[in-house]
Amino acid sequence: AAVAQSPELSSQQQRTVDRLIDQGLEDDVGWELLESLTTEIGPRLGGSPDEARAREWGARKLKQLGFKNVRIETFEMPYWERVTETAEIVSPYPQELKITALGNSVATPEGGVAAEVVRFRTLLDLQDAPLEGYEGKIIFVDEVMSRTQDGSGYGWAVAKRSGAANEAAKRGAVAAIIRSAGTSHGRTPHTGNMRYSDDVSPVPIAALSNPDADLLGLAMKRADGPVTVSVDISVHTKTVVESGNVIGEIPGKSDEIILIGGHLDSWDLGTGAVDDGAGIAITTAAAKLIDDLPGKPNRTIRVIMWGSEEVGLLGAFAYAEAHADELDRHLLASESDFGAGKVWQFRTGFAEEHLPKAQVYQKALRRLGIGPGNNQAGGGPDVTPLRRAGVPVFRLYQDGSDYFDLHHTMEDTLDKVDPEALRQNIAAWAATVYVASELEGDYRASESE
Amino acid sequence: AAVAQSPELSSQQQRTVDRLIDQGLEDDVGWELLESLTTEIGPRLGGSPDEARAREWGARKLKQLGFKNVRIETFEMPYWERVTETAEIVSPYPQELKITALGNSVATPEGGVAAEVVRFRTLLDLQDAPLEGYEGKIIFVDEVMSRTQDGSGYGWAVAKRSGAANEAAKRGAVAAIIRSAGTSHGRTPHTGNMRYSDDVSPVPIAALSNPDADLLGLAMKRADGPVTVSVDISVHTKTVVESGNVIGEIPGKSDEIILIGGHLDSWDLGTGAVDDGAGIAITTAAAKLIDDLPGKPNRTIRVIMWGSEEVGLLGAFAYAEAHADELDRHLLASESDFGAGKVWQFRTGFAEEHLPKAQVYQKALRRLGIGPGNNQAGGGPDVTPLRRAGVPVFRLYQDGSDYFDLHHTMEDTLDKVDPEALRQNIAAWAATVYVASELEGDYRASESE
Ligand SMILES: [Zn+2]
Ligand SMILES: [Zn+2]
Ligand SMILES: [Zn+2]
Ligand SMILES: [Zn+2]
Repeated sequence: AAVAQSPELSSQQQRTVDRLIDQGLEDDVGWELLESLTTEIGPRLGGSPDEARAREWGARKLKQLGFKNVRIETFEMPYWERVTETAEIVSPYPQELKITALGNSVATPEGGVAAEVVRFRTLLDLQDAPLEGYEGKIIFVDEVMSRTQDGSGYGWAVAKRSGAANEAAKRGAVAAIIRSAGTSHGRTPHTGNMRYSDDVSPVPIAALSNPDADLLGLAMKRADGPVTVSVDISVHTKTVVESGNVIGEIPGKSDEIILIGGHLDSWDLGTGAVDDGAGIAITTAAAKLIDDLPGKPNRTIRVIMWGSEEVGLLGAFAYAEAHADELDRHLLASESDFGAGKVWQFRTGFAEEHLPKAQVYQKALRRLGIGPGNNQAGGGPDVTPLRRAGVPVFRLYQDGSDYFDLHHTMEDTLDKVDPEALRQNIAAWAATVYVASELEGDYRASESE
Repeated sequence: AAVAQSPELSSQQQRTVDRLIDQGLEDDVGWELLESLTTEIGPRLGGSPDEARAREWGARKLKQLGFKNVRIETFEMPYWERVTETAEIVSPYPQELKITALGNSVATPEGGVAAEVVRFRTLLDLQDAPLEGYEGKIIFVDEVMSRTQDGSGYGWAVAKRSGAANEAAKRGAVAAIIRSAGTSHGRTPHTGNMRYSDDVSPVPIAALSNPDADLLGLAMKRADGPVTVSVDISVHTKTVVESGNVIGEIPGKSDEIILIGGHLDSWDLGTGAVDDGAGIAITTAAAKLIDDLPGKPNRTIRVIMWGSEEVGLLGAFAYAEAHADELDRHLLASESDFGAGKVWQFRTGFAEEHLPKAQVYQKALRRLGIGPGNNQAGGGPDVTPLRRAGVPVFRLYQDGSDYFDLHHTMEDTLDKVDPEALRQNIAAWAATVYVASELEGDYRASESE
């Protein structure tokens, strides 16, 4: 691709970037939002009355902060919630096992199921196993997840959530259990959404905490004969409930849109501090810093608190559909949804010809310890449908070394967030969004313009 | 006190010490015991059928390892167990709170109690508060425990377990809740025994995990008016059940006894790996190393797996009573009951005149990174009645920096134990017990002999 001459910020704009970073590093708005959301609302499962309370909270906060065009864009969705979930080793060594049902799991029959456990080291081992010989068994996928800075261990780990249930169902097993798709050494099993294949008869699936998976493995190693486990899961579902995206704007001089945000829903086990109260707090506080500058930004900054991300990016798809006719005015989109660790890298998803512009961002962010990254950014989960529709994206990569100790567990609470790291995020987002607003030109391939 | 000439080990004995340490550092017996106990028995509350299974386990293991005079000395005790325990902020910000009932707490009325919360920063603040004005309230003692290497933060923390309930009862409150007497950042509240004063009408008491105490404090800070919390605790008690101490010996050339061990019971929330499966494993494996030496030790080494320590040192008092007539033959006593962290200091509870003998132990232990400590050792919880009866004691102080992250919570599981640290403990105990067996003379004040 041809390389265009790199645009620059004016020296006044560069000074503004630096001032925004200084202010971000002393920001209190972000922490206040996060404390308020986790304390006053707490867990807010997609489609639940708690998520509805969170939407009211979000609209109220955006208005109080001075955002314009504040609105809730609703959509309909199916609903799933856990009711009870218990498990134990029945024999030969009776002991409780800490489990949590995966989102969308069917219930066990009333009173639970008890059966011999068959262990597979990995999902791949299970996929390679014969289809016969597992009828009536409980299938245990004991695959371990790796700790990584960039979260790259999570993709493999997630595969086992739907994979274990579907492979177990194909083989006539009565339930599937997996080692948590998380890195915590705590007895805090990790939930997350799963989907059944159309061609199987669904079997219930739950995750064991890492220590409980260790325990079950040791029991199987030490026992002379079969190890029997019981699993009891009950759930509650509804065909249609309401969810929604909360939207607020800082109107710009042009109708081009810079779309940022985090997702408002959380899993039900914790208070959704790192996933994704932090993303809400970071992006809202960053936009507020830009709103506080004299005059209007060049482009409109649209903050979205996405609804029902955890249960299938439902808010993201609803937005992409409802706003299909203005997606070509979306200059850039990005979501903060990887916790509250410090940003360490800036990645882009620009048309190749616009890569020189990335250097303007890199220069602005360098003092925050943020290095240049590749051009393979996805932009964040809720941006996926927009990226597929051609909207350019960026991502401020956060250090996720401890993210999967917390994420989707009851340990996702406010005390796990480092206020200094949160402020570094706010500074980085304020600088990035300001550059996006003021820097001339766009990020799409010219043939598509 | 007069200082006697320091005795010495022979050079052959010193070589044996070194060989025992080498073998301890490569020991597998201790880990095998700990894995077996936590996997095959798991939680084993004092007086429960699980503790009875653990006694059978202990006697079987001691026999298999070649210990002599293996026996279970039973005693009777009252019994308490938790059945259910839940709490929530009812208003203005409805959210679940993670709690655990303290051992011996009474139940709430059926269906629980809901009342306005009154917060005290410390137990001392509560003690200083007037007796009027708290009728019908829930009293919340939000005192924070400090992380220390030697566990010295625990004493203050424990005071609030009984203190908060008794002070709340005096004031007509309907329940007491405390910030956990633990250092964990996890949502894993910390249980432990409490006792009601005779002069109060008992009120139920539970501990909040540290993050949940943070949450409740923030809710009170943010709310315009009162914060209402509900607590629902049910328990099950029995007047008399059976417990017992499991005892095994390595008979020595003399009838003097060196008494070591750990406690077999655990709280019900975890599998009792660090409290106190580790103590059982360390002391049994150390004694086994001495038994494997050629010939008999000079003194008898008696290993006790103490019963029902957690619920009031019941095994300790039963032993001291049953063995009152042979306590003068107890040369030294000690318990390993502070987890599985590396030993960093050797402390004694010798008569002053025998302090020079401590140097022989210090010299033996130095290569393990163990330094000299003071002469104020208590010997360990189950040794308390013996020390009071004049039995000299020692203690191998373990690094407890993370002990109160785990202790008395559901996180007390095998995966938290470092096998290398466990081996260092076994080496230290083997060396110490060997010196105690072979070194001439005793540790009592001469006037008492
Ligand atoms: Zn998320
Ligand atoms: Zn998530
Ligand atoms: Zn203990
Ligand atoms: Zn204890």
